[in-house]
Amino acid sequence: MEEINIGDYSLLGKSIPRIDAYEKVTGEAKYAADIELPGMLWCKILRSPLPHAKILNIDISRAKRLTGVKAVCTAKDFKGFRWGWMPITRDEPPLAEDKVRFYGEGVAAVAAIDEETAEEALELIKVDYEELPGVFDPEEALKEGAPVVHDYRPNNISWEFHMDFGDVEKGFKEADLVREDRFATGRVITGFLEPPAAIALWNSSGITIWAAKQSPYFVYRHLAQCFNLPLNKIRVIQPFVGGGFGGTKNDSVAGDFCSVLFSKMTGRPVKFVYKMEEVFLTCRRRHNAIIYNKMGMKKDGTITAMQSRLIADGGAYTAIGPLTMYLTGCISTLPYKLPNFKHDAYRVFTNNPVGAAMRGHGVTHTRFAAEIQMDMMAEELGLDPMEIRLKNAIEAPYETINKVTIFSCGLKDGLLKLKEHPLWKERKKENKDKETISGVGISGVAYLGGARQRGYQSCAAVLRLCEDGTVEYLTGATDAGQGSDTVLTQIVAEELGLSIDHVDIQRVDTAYTPCDAGSYGSRVTALAGEAAMKAAKDLKRQLAEYAAKEWNVSSEDIVFKNNKVYPKHMPDKAIPFRKLAQIACYSGVGAVIIGRGYSQYGIEPYDFEKGIGNAGTAYSFTSQLTRVEVDKETGFTKCTDMIIAHDCGKPLNPGLVESQNQGASVQGLGQAIYEEFVMDRGRTLNANLADYKMPTAVDAPNIEVIHILTDDPKVPYGAKEASEGAIVSSPPSVISAIHDATGIWFKELPVTPEKIALALREKKKE
Amino acid sequence: MEEINIGDYSLLGKSIPRIDAYEKVTGEAKYAADIELPGMLWCKILRSPLPHAKILNIDISRAKRLTGVKAVCTAKDFKGFRWGWMPITRDEPPLAEDKVRFYGEGVAAVAAIDEETAEEALELIKVDYEELPGVFDPEEALKEGAPVVHDYRPNNISWEFHMDFGDVEKGFKEADLVREDRFATGRVITGFLEPPAAIALWNSSGITIWAAKQSPYFVYRHLAQCFNLPLNKIRVIQPFVGGGFGGTKNDSVAGDFCSVLFSKMTGRPVKFVYKMEEVFLTCRRRHNAIIYNKMGMKKDGTITAMQSRLIADGGAYTAIGPLTMYLTGCISTLPYKLPNFKHDAYRVFTNNPVGAAMRGHGVTHTRFAAEIQMDMMAEELGLDPMEIRLKNAIEAPYETINKVTIFSCGLKDGLLKLKEHPLWKERKKENKDKETISGVGISGVAYLGGARQRGYQSCAAVLRLCEDGTVEYLTGATDAGQGSDTVLTQIVAEELGLSIDHVDIQRVDTAYTPCDAGSYGSRVTALAGEAAMKAAKDLKRQLAEYAAKEWNVSSEDIVFKNNKVYPKHMPDKAIPFRKLAQIACYSGVGAVIIGRGYSQYGIEPYDFEKGIGNAGTAYSFTSQLTRVEVDKETGFTKCTDMIIAHDCGKPLNPGLVESQNQGASVQGLGQAIYEEFVMDRGRTLNANLADYKMPTAVDAPNIEVIHILTDDPKVPYGAKEASEGAIVSSPPSVISAIHDATGIWFKELPVTPEKIALALREKKKE
Repeated sequence: MEEINIGDYSLLGKSIPRIDAYEKVTGEAKYAADIELPGMLWCKILRSPLPHAKILNIDISRAKRLTGVKAVCTAKDFKGFRWGWMPITRDEPPLAEDKVRFYGEGVAAVAAIDEETAEEALELIKVDYEELPGVFDPEEALKEGAPVVHDYRPNNISWEFHMDFGDVEKGFKEADLVREDRFATGRVITGFLEPPAAIALWNSSGITIWAAKQSPYFVYRHLAQCFNLPLNKIRVIQPFVGGGFGGTKNDSVAGDFCSVLFSKMTGRPVKFVYKMEEVFLTCRRRHNAIIYNKMGMKKDGTITAMQSRLIADGGAYTAIGPLTMYLTGCISTLPYKLPNFKHDAYRVFTNNPVGAAMRGHGVTHTRFAAEIQMDMMAEELGLDPMEIRLKNAIEAPYETINKVTIFSCGLKDGLLKLKEHPLWKERKKENKDKETISGVGISGVAYLGGARQRGYQSCAAVLRLCEDGTVEYLTGATDAGQGSDTVLTQIVAEELGLSIDHVDIQRVDTAYTPCDAGSYGSRVTALAGEAAMKAAKDLKRQLAEYAAKEWNVSSEDIVFKNNKVYPKHMPDKAIPFRKLAQIACYSGVGAVIIGRGYSQYGIEPYDFEKGIGNAGTAYSFTSQLTRVEVDKETGFTKCTDMIIAHDCGKPLNPGLVESQNQGASVQGLGQAIYEEFVMDRGRTLNANLADYKMPTAVDAPNIEVIHILTDDPKVPYGAKEASEGAIVSSPPSVISAIHDATGIWFKELPVTPEKIALALREKKKE
Repeated sequence: MEEINIGDYSLLGKSIPRIDAYEKVTGEAKYAADIELPGMLWCKILRSPLPHAKILNIDISRAKRLTGVKAVCTAKDFKGFRWGWMPITRDEPPLAEDKVRFYGEGVAAVAAIDEETAEEALELIKVDYEELPGVFDPEEALKEGAPVVHDYRPNNISWEFHMDFGDVEKGFKEADLVREDRFATGRVITGFLEPPAAIALWNSSGITIWAAKQSPYFVYRHLAQCFNLPLNKIRVIQPFVGGGFGGTKNDSVAGDFCSVLFSKMTGRPVKFVYKMEEVFLTCRRRHNAIIYNKMGMKKDGTITAMQSRLIADGGAYTAIGPLTMYLTGCISTLPYKLPNFKHDAYRVFTNNPVGAAMRGHGVTHTRFAAEIQMDMMAEELGLDPMEIRLKNAIEAPYETINKVTIFSCGLKDGLLKLKEHPLWKERKKENKDKETISGVGISGVAYLGGARQRGYQSCAAVLRLCEDGTVEYLTGATDAGQGSDTVLTQIVAEELGLSIDHVDIQRVDTAYTPCDAGSYGSRVTALAGEAAMKAAKDLKRQLAEYAAKEWNVSSEDIVFKNNKVYPKHMPDKAIPFRKLAQIACYSGVGAVIIGRGYSQYGIEPYDFEKGIGNAGTAYSFTSQLTRVEVDKETGFTKCTDMIIAHDCGKPLNPGLVESQNQGASVQGLGQAIYEEFVMDRGRTLNANLADYKMPTAVDAPNIEVIHILTDDPKVPYGAKEASEGAIVSSPPSVISAIHDATGIWFKELPVTPEKIALALREKKKE
């Protein structure tokens, strides 16, 4: 088992295999779509064939008369309910009300005895539309006279966010070189393999829903609001989750509301499973964005100022978009020293599907622009891209101009490791053959972990000691596939000195588990981990009192290790942990001893309006080398190698940190060169996994992850973010490698073979 | 709503309707037998047609070959596992091993795709038996040369228990009258309407079982032992429970083990539902017992000594029998002053079904004997049965000769209330017609509540505050129908100053809820109630800190009342509780605040071997008047009235206390005059609800419950036992009433019309 010495630990730093590996590999694991209840109905949603249209009339009478149909609903059944991330931006109804705003938006829904009958009934619903002119490009949408998507935002600006620190004009004046470029990031989607699905039951206990969510407590609140029930009447039970990556799975979908409503109407459990086509047509995507970036640099590479203007395609509703805008700017002042910074971000309504969160949320756009522009300027100034990064990289402790405080930073260490790596040192010695040219690119980025946008988004843990010395662990945190259940269990077992199999973690059931914000913003290990650690310490403290009595020592001198307990300095007196559990349970307050812990780190306030302060609990730093081969004739690219030097502080489970980096960098590779939704007036033409080209295992390069160890006091055991950094570092290093191979700078993602081939042809002409 | 002022409370003392009434009345409530899982198999058990026999061979080959049969098991698949209440008396295998010991004992089991196929397969199993002589009467079983049921108990004494306090011989010498009588209690069963049922699933998470249990943590431990799994791999999920009353539902049944084993063998969920015939033939019963009672009394009615010898029919296995024996003696020193007491209890193995716990556990036998004997002696001495009770009744504080300490006692108050009751005062004035004679009987008893046989049998509670001010309440306590969920919810809501509907209690799920001993020994309100109260106080303490900050007062001065919170002396500053919850959740440690409480009352040690000390946390006192009409010709009895003066301390929900007393007194009526298993050499001939005559609503008399309020410091809010007292007080008052009507003393239960008619005929002859 891979092991990294990160301190005096028994389990932390070891690549403990995932605790759910067996279930997942054998298929025993049940996902939402696998669940069946007796008497269950199927819910299907009728979707708009137009991107922008008034709804004149909906005739559901024929659908209702079809044998096997139990209920039909439209927007009016939701009585004006709309949801959204912030109270002031709740603009999305479960089903379209007066008008549809994007192709595929839900218009009506059916509950029937089986899936086929429900689908047949959809065809019997007659909707009269009056088509409206649509707007599909965010820059077009900002123009005077553009079609208006929402009346409450007549200028189509869904949200704007501005930062202004130092004096950028002064900074540009001090520079020897100033560049302005237009960058663009692509229309991409999370690409989880498990579609949104749920089975809902309404009865006198309230709502019970088994739902595929990475953040079950979002839908928990949305359902309480939609159906006007108290939170303790909402029970979200979380099956295994087949991938999240933000967006859809940490939000609600129309099916959630419709299936609950149908259960209320019929008294029967109601299930829905989205088809992959529905996911690709209608679910949350990463915002595609245009970034106008301006940077000032001295001859020696010192960055003097940066100014960015970002225009993001928000699609038809606001969703979590305001947070996306905040994230495009709030850590642009990292990972390089930046004395002057100005940022203006605009989220624009269009008649496209909704833009929302996705792994590397917000940061992917602006970091891509800044990294590439930095390389372009280094080239102009004749500077080495490695040296320019080493020159500007921050060192901890550090406070950015917008008061983000950094207590640990492994960027320089990482860059120095990459500098010595053969892939970098030997990049110019490569023997390029005639058809293929190759290049190596580099990037350096920061990402926040333990994201905490509101005070209430912290975590709690409850541990229950069984009398045989095993432990039940209740958390509201969700393992959407990232392996957090394994890491959290390691933490609890480590603190109690137990083997990993002595601790049993339960999946979320909101009726029983403590509330939690969910899995996003790389927050689980930091925040749920802190709660787990504290709950374990609390349990240990109670147990130590019994042990101390046994040996007549202070309870603080009791050591818990290797499933044993002993007084410090008297390891020969050790008794099994099991024995102490028995003593405590049989002689003390009862058969159960409960440990409780809350997360408390990083609750300093920060300014969401102005972009000041720490939205993360701690910050990771990733630097990446990527080697790409380019076919000179066809423009076909093959990524052969990625070296990722990742400072996650302390890798509690090195194997999981590596696999997170691998997954994220390959996902980033997809967004750099493969993935793109082809749109025609709001309609997605490649709404399936065959035509939307996500990289698969065969497209993955050799990936080497170098652990850069740092020591951050703000997170438990010093464990920072792992996985969002590499999806930020991956695209610029890929594009930089393509430039290294071809001499061409590409500024719009994805950089497809077509684009490269055309550019190479143009270049030849020159 | 009925209301009794028991203190300055908003909810306590009020007859809040049961919180699960709607589900139960509408049929929404799901019981174990209602649960279905996809791919589920049915488990059926082959039962012995002989009461005592060697098993020579079991041929399962034909059953295995039947289409639809997925697995067959016999004892050998359980590898010698046996269960029982005490480690040293674990003598019961899930299926009979070398021999069967009672008629209907499980011999083999089948899992098949449906119930019919499983039943058909049972017929294909061929068992070769060698019949052994059986023993069916406990007094016979004690004789030299009787057939031996278990080799490890060659004298057939399953368990014995002895108490000896003071000097009974001296006491008898001081008496003016000494009587010795032989009494007997009948063969009766709990008579719940929901049969034992469960659905079991074995997978890599361990065992999950949805089981009909009043004490889910018994089967939890049994399954861990049987299948050698740690406790955190055993998940017992508790559906609604349709009655318990001890015995079967707070123990495991063969079906539990077989269904789990079958799920392990097949990988599929496996269900069983006992037929009512199986319940009556094979499930736990109350021990039937013979009690030789000797009492000494002075002319003025003062009791000088009592000596009892009890011989109980234990049936084929030990089960919880040792506790039954303890309970037959431990509170025989209540409710009357008793300076000298000796008790010898013998639990005897026979080839009958197993004797175990039942409502009024143990005490019903010896109290019946003592109460009737007291009346007989009062009659001989020309004393009034009311006065003799008033004379001997203890008053709190009191310590019995075996060091049971009593802090509250409403016996005298109750007797005085009954003495003034028209039913008692006018009993001699009754105008008896010619065919029917009537009589009124009285009894006075004590019962323990908050039973706590071991240190580990205490309770815990976890409360989770939701950010909208509603509360989730996790407890390991089970509402088997007694209404405890309602009372526990009242406690939590009372402490937090909330309406009852703001608190949501969850049924037990051992993966999530704190461990609890279960519903027996009238322990839920006392012990789970204490834990609930403390958890609520703990939650309140945390919330009060936020409130105190708001108003700059001490957190101890914060009042929680009527869904509001305010500083003491400043009620006009009140804010909604909801608002404080939001402040705490949004500004503090997180979206969840957790309250935790353990029960701690009554953990003083007691001596189970010698019968010294308090096995209960507090003691209830019940006195009862019963009026019975007897048909002189047929002996047919009709109970017309019961007046129950019950000291439960403080009735937290008077309506529930009354309904518990009503149910228990009618169940006691059944045991006094109706219920009896007719046995033929170990075989129960009336194994169904038609032939086994339980009283129904139409047999119930008018019942008046008089609340006797006392103040016990050992239980939360002073709430003591309700329901077990009245099943103890009921039979002696009924039999005493029959004597009052007929002039005849009956000493063997049940006193059927046949017995009365015969006795009346004998009496006429005299």
